[in-house]
Amino acid sequence: MGEINKLKILNDPIYGFITITNPLVYDLIQHPYFQRLRRISQMGMSYLVYPGAHHTRFHHALGCMHIMQKTIQVLKFKGTEISEEEETALNIAILLHDIGHGPFSHAMEHSIAESVHHEAISLLFMNRLNDIFDGKLTLAIKIFKGEYHRHFMLQLISSQLDMDRMDYLKRDSFYSGVAEGNINSERLIQMFDVKDDMLVIEEKGIYSVEKFLVARRLMYWQAYLHKTSVAAELIMTKILKRAKELTQSGITLPASEPLQFFMKNKVTLDDFNDDVLNKFSYLDDFDIVSAVKSWQFNDDFVLSELSKMIINRDLLKIRMRSEKVSKGEVSDLLERFVKISGLTEKEAEYFVFKGKIKNQAYNKTGEPIHILKKDRTIEDVVEASDQLNLKALSKPVTKYYLCFPKVLLEQAAFN
Amino acid sequence: MGEINKLKILNDPIYGFITITNPLVYDLIQHPYFQRLRRISQMGMSYLVYPGAHHTRFHHALGCMHIMQKTIQVLKFKGTEISEEEETALNIAILLHDIGHGPFSHAMEHSIAESVHHEAISLLFMNRLNDIFDGKLTLAIKIFKGEYHRHFMLQLISSQLDMDRMDYLKRDSFYSGVAEGNINSERLIQMFDVKDDMLVIEEKGIYSVEKFLVARRLMYWQAYLHKTSVAAELIMTKILKRAKELTQSGITLPASEPLQFFMKNKVTLDDFNDDVLNKFSYLDDFDIVSAVKSWQFNDDFVLSELSKMIINRDLLKIRMRSEKVSKGEVSDLLERFVKISGLTEKEAEYFVFKGKIKNQAYNKTGEPIHILKKDRTIEDVVEASDQLNLKALSKPVTKYYLCFPKVLLEQAAFN
Amino acid sequence: MGEINKLKILNDPIYGFITITNPLVYDLIQHPYFQRLRRISQMGMSYLVYPGAHHTRFHHALGCMHIMQKTIQVLKFKGTEISEEEETALNIAILLHDIGHGPFSHAMEHSIAESVHHEAISLLFMNRLNDIFDGKLTLAIKIFKGEYHRHFMLQLISSQLDMDRMDYLKRDSFYSGVAEGNINSERLIQMFDVKDDMLVIEEKGIYSVEKFLVARRLMYWQAYLHKTSVAAELIMTKILKRAKELTQSGITLPASEPLQFFMKNKVTLDDFNDDVLNKFSYLDDFDIVSAVKSWQFNDDFVLSELSKMIINRDLLKIRMRSEKVSKGEVSDLLERFVKISGLTEKEAEYFVFKGKIKNQAYNKTGEPIHILKKDRTIEDVVEASDQLNLKALSKPVTKYYLCFPKVLLEQAAFN
Amino acid sequence: MGEINKLKILNDPIYGFITITNPLVYDLIQHPYFQRLRRISQMGMSYLVYPGAHHTRFHHALGCMHIMQKTIQVLKFKGTEISEEEETALNIAILLHDIGHGPFSHAMEHSIAESVHHEAISLLFMNRLNDIFDGKLTLAIKIFKGEYHRHFMLQLISSQLDMDRMDYLKRDSFYSGVAEGNINSERLIQMFDVKDDMLVIEEKGIYSVEKFLVARRLMYWQAYLHKTSVAAELIMTKILKRAKELTQSGITLPASEPLQFFMKNKVTLDDFNDDVLNKFSYLDDFDIVSAVKSWQFNDDFVLSELSKMIINRDLLKIRMRSEKVSKGEVSDLLERFVKISGLTEKEAEYFVFKGKIKNQAYNKTGEPIHILKKDRTIEDVVEASDQLNLKALSKPVTKYYLCFPKVLLEQAAFN
Repeated sequence: MGEINKLKILNDPIYGFITITNPLVYDLIQHPYFQRLRRISQMGMSYLVYPGAHHTRFHHALGCMHIMQKTIQVLKFKGTEISEEEETALNIAILLHDIGHGPFSHAMEHSIAESVHHEAISLLFMNRLNDIFDGKLTLAIKIFKGEYHRHFMLQLISSQLDMDRMDYLKRDSFYSGVAEGNINSERLIQMFDVKDDMLVIEEKGIYSVEKFLVARRLMYWQAYLHKTSVAAELIMTKILKRAKELTQSGITLPASEPLQFFMKNKVTLDDFNDDVLNKFSYLDDFDIVSAVKSWQFNDDFVLSELSKMIINRDLLKIRMRSEKVSKGEVSDLLERFVKISGLTEKEAEYFVFKGKIKNQAYNKTGEPIHILKKDRTIEDVVEASDQLNLKALSKPVTKYYLCFPKVLLEQAAFN
Repeated sequence: MGEINKLKILNDPIYGFITITNPLVYDLIQHPYFQRLRRISQMGMSYLVYPGAHHTRFHHALGCMHIMQKTIQVLKFKGTEISEEEETALNIAILLHDIGHGPFSHAMEHSIAESVHHEAISLLFMNRLNDIFDGKLTLAIKIFKGEYHRHFMLQLISSQLDMDRMDYLKRDSFYSGVAEGNINSERLIQMFDVKDDMLVIEEKGIYSVEKFLVARRLMYWQAYLHKTSVAAELIMTKILKRAKELTQSGITLPASEPLQFFMKNKVTLDDFNDDVLNKFSYLDDFDIVSAVKSWQFNDDFVLSELSKMIINRDLLKIRMRSEKVSKGEVSDLLERFVKISGLTEKEAEYFVFKGKIKNQAYNKTGEPIHILKKDRTIEDVVEASDQLNLKALSKPVTKYYLCFPKVLLEQAAFN
Repeated sequence: MGEINKLKILNDPIYGFITITNPLVYDLIQHPYFQRLRRISQMGMSYLVYPGAHHTRFHHALGCMHIMQKTIQVLKFKGTEISEEEETALNIAILLHDIGHGPFSHAMEHSIAESVHHEAISLLFMNRLNDIFDGKLTLAIKIFKGEYHRHFMLQLISSQLDMDRMDYLKRDSFYSGVAEGNINSERLIQMFDVKDDMLVIEEKGIYSVEKFLVARRLMYWQAYLHKTSVAAELIMTKILKRAKELTQSGITLPASEPLQFFMKNKVTLDDFNDDVLNKFSYLDDFDIVSAVKSWQFNDDFVLSELSKMIINRDLLKIRMRSEKVSKGEVSDLLERFVKISGLTEKEAEYFVFKGKIKNQAYNKTGEPIHILKKDRTIEDVVEASDQLNLKALSKPVTKYYLCFPKVLLEQAAFN
Repeated sequence: MGEINKLKILNDPIYGFITITNPLVYDLIQHPYFQRLRRISQMGMSYLVYPGAHHTRFHHALGCMHIMQKTIQVLKFKGTEISEEEETALNIAILLHDIGHGPFSHAMEHSIAESVHHEAISLLFMNRLNDIFDGKLTLAIKIFKGEYHRHFMLQLISSQLDMDRMDYLKRDSFYSGVAEGNINSERLIQMFDVKDDMLVIEEKGIYSVEKFLVARRLMYWQAYLHKTSVAAELIMTKILKRAKELTQSGITLPASEPLQFFMKNKVTLDDFNDDVLNKFSYLDDFDIVSAVKSWQFNDDFVLSELSKMIINRDLLKIRMRSEKVSKGEVSDLLERFVKISGLTEKEAEYFVFKGKIKNQAYNKTGEPIHILKKDRTIEDVVEASDQLNLKALSKPVTKYYLCFPKVLLEQAAFN
């Protein structure tokens, strides 16, 4: 295929069109490692709450690249020099920043692929692709790892106001219909500049930053940490845990071959050779959901009950509140459920459990969002803002949850 | 759960909110038969062209119900009497009108479930649900089958300007980002009226009808019949055909149990007893895509090659044009491909083939879209319009395609 | 005209359609007192900053009525009884709540029509219309004045989360293109309820309220109090002051007859008999701008210079900051300008002056926005929220400005 | 002001942001000749039908420039060389293409400024500005006049698919809320190319062209030629005619000085020296509407009655239909109105009259829209399209109207 045919235009309901301006980028997108992202949902099981939220990590990655292109244009217009090689590297780095995500990442990382984080796998994929493409990704990887001397380039990829966050807030808001998360990415992009090798926002963009942080907070509580999504994700985690447990005890569950592999073996990051990476690359939402579908009919009561919950959207009840859940509350419910169900306590714990979730719209201890003031000095956005508002957004919020089966509903004291 | 808790509000990025105003409707949505629609994509494999097009038949069905509610409000406001019972029946009929869709319907109907149309299965599901819900769906079914005495109610469910078409055009346009298909459903709804038991559009809405028909035509050629989508669907059909062929020759392919069932048995509509219907209800996109993923590694060259094409989006080339493809063109390419690949001619026909597709924005021989003129007479929209435009839209357009492997690209004379 | 023909539908780019469902409402809209609002811009001179901001008080009033209709529907659906008579009264009260606005209200109220507030004039118009329409507005006026026994009805018209604020934020955001102000009015409306005769928001709507307050704050600083808009408004105030001053000193300036009247006479609220009210009703943006256009060529230097600034958008410079402007800074600039221009100090003060503006997104001392918690108790939104964020929004923010002619720019120490 | 400060960003609700990338462009926008466009409505009196349609020629001109910038980017990306000088010239030419518009152009051209077309005045303004800016507009003027050797540049400014049409359709649709006119300008821009010095659209953009032409047709019948807008414009024309008639008979009507000038003098294009051009530049909507407001109270019955109609939106009735209006119908109504009103027949003709309007979405006899086929040949869009649809759009549609006072309504046979 001629190089000219690799300059493609893709429809995007959010930005109108996404342009692929570079043949290498085109080839990376075509690679099966990247195409698999078409089969991995960006918002996990949020579609059980927001039926429109079926967009994929594939689309998000393209969206990030699009706003990277726009941002580079703005920075160059304002006088920052960025070479063609750096431009391509930035596009590649953002395109691949999430390539290490598996299906239902969070649930996976808390069950089957314990403590193997997707960032690490992203880097493995990038290195593998760098081999395949004759070292053409070297600069992209350097930037991604924070080893390139131009610091602002890392900030474009990964910071408290990076391409990733801008695209996912906008995209998740768009597809879920949670209008509260719709940020003005175009304005934010227009406000970007580079000063002393730092990514900064012009002072007049301060309200847009504030809006961005508020939107992020709202998306957390209304979408990402919506109690029903949280419940679904917890159930999925329990399912995968149970499936791994049964597999390791010698029972063979129906599952695709790559999923079997990860259920049978305790894979750590050190085990990720090319072969394991390939196996991982075959995993996507279809392996998990298909397995869960078939597990509905499994002999194991715990596995089949939890599986039915996901498939028929008939979930555990969840209560969320600002105060801690006491051990007494849990043991009380457990006891009752043991009595009703005839399960052992250990089994019942798959249905009755507690935990906490935490969110912070802006992290004051990390690298700040920098504001470029009119007098050309730089200030942390929290200091530059005219009131308490952003200080408030820096405060972490913790919520506590308690999950239990519907059958305990009438009896549950907890409200 | 109390009846009051069944009056739910769902986020929809298109209409803002979709309201469930009736406990029976709520219960139908909760039923596994309906929940399965969450796992069936509305636009099949169009996401290979439009990466945002991952919305589901579940969401579409809810959207149809939403505009049915709005339409009923308008008709009542204009003086048409609609009882509460009829209102619920209309909501149910439109909610369930597509419940019989299987995964990748078109490909399925041309391979595994030959000549079993989704409309017939929808009716089977409705009858089954009517049993489960003690006959409460009787009126909805009567309307759906066209047996109710108020004809306009059938037209709301199924006609050339029904709730189904309005929602899918708007929804498919929204998620794919093909702006050309975005119709003004709100205005169309405002223009609806009933005259002599016929669904009509007020004369001043005639331009909106025209826009609707043009939008439908554009969506056909830009989205539904986009050559890449067509190619993907044809490949999927070939895959399922091959898989069935192999299965029936005694080879066991990896596949979920319900998919196995439909590959092993030649199921006609007469065979659809409750048990078969249940089996069918377990089938969704996840069964098909998971199977295709595993078939990539199958020993059968035809099956594995075609499967890889879908999974890695590395499709057959397709040419589309207004003139017929001659037998000579096909046999020529076939011959070359046999030579290159070493396949038998019969096998090679899975990779080189021709066909045609047809579309007509408005069908002049079917029941027309009625315009209510200012003098209260009724006219076919084509007559009422002031120019040739709609006549043109009534003309069927046929296009001819030719598919072949990339390897033949340089050699292909066909352009 | 038949009553049936008064049930009209109007296009609105924001809500799609606005429906007039009542013949009396139709007649009120048709009245010249209301039609004049077509000629009064909603955002004053903001179009000098945001070129799209030319929408009118007419459109805003219709928009308010639209969301009133939607809100009433929701409240009734949730069980609050609202009679047809009350419904019409609510529609009328919100439709007319701003009818007393003159052109460039703020500038007028600080110059020509000193200390005659538009709320008071709104009431005068309503009373006059009540006479004309045989007392049919009596209930609407009672609600508007807070004299009706159902308190929540007043809250719909006038409170910290009323129809007025919801429409103007959304509308001003839409037309100006300041996306930060776009609130999710549809969701807010869905969350409304009435408890103990109080307008409340369901607890799960708390994030939308927060978003609403943040949006309001952002619109203040980015649009309403944008420094260029503020400068334009201050210049307009100075022009009208100067024109009045000259008129009262016996000079006749070109101006429409009604404008002449208000420049010649010191009109207080007590003077507003029917005749004065009629004269006031003839005043709109066209009187003011036409006068300013002709004053560009007036002999009075102050008047002509300031007028040219508005017409050619060549404004005074304005500096805004968080710290007070000292008298010294002003007298310094004044002195220099007197020297350059040869004006008297009194005249120069039309070009060099200081002041302050204040804004508060949420007023903690007024009637709060009430949240209806899940246990059916009511709480102030600031208490109900999970963090400091809303407390921050209650803090008033004050900014100080200094205006001066461009000619002093290089010399101005102030930055 | 430094050159760097002239690179400005303006909010636009349609495109997000409009960027001024050139100091000369900035200076032209700042010039009073251009600033006056802020006071000239783009859609004349359409706001009487669509209350949101208050956008201005100022905003439209900026919008055109924005899409010109985008189009130039696309053409350059596809390999067409465009020098920086040409780029600036194209931006200027499109920015100023409509600068010759007076207030309510159409009504003006049919009354006060008879047969002086706005295109001619645009050129006068450009020449004048070229003098002021030391010949820097020479190339822009050359392109505008079609005298530059690169033909496609003229086509960008003026053709059947130019920047002007794309922006006004999108903008008028946006502000009026007539969704039917919303075209996909972004996609059209992506499809532009230059072949043999001709502006062409790539073949795969053919449906977007079709949609564009349909949208244009719909905007004509739903917005520009909406019967109420037509009636308002006809009344405005009659008012201006009457005012001119009275003025020329020696009566002095209240009016601004520049309006007086054009009512007193029969100005032809030849009379447009710098002084007349300056006078013309002072005219805007405010002169006309202010005059009409004051004429409501004039002694001349014809003038005052017609003026009240506009101000209070209480218009003449208008009937539109496909068949000609006979002389008999008019004389019949005239006779009755003379009897009722006591006016002379000549006066009555201001209230009872007929006429016709015509529209054609695509002009087959003019320069066609060129389609660039895949084989790199060029074809007229009508030939390239796959069906009759576009042929239909080439057919001119004529409608006939009859206007008369409401008082004749019951008696009017015409329906």
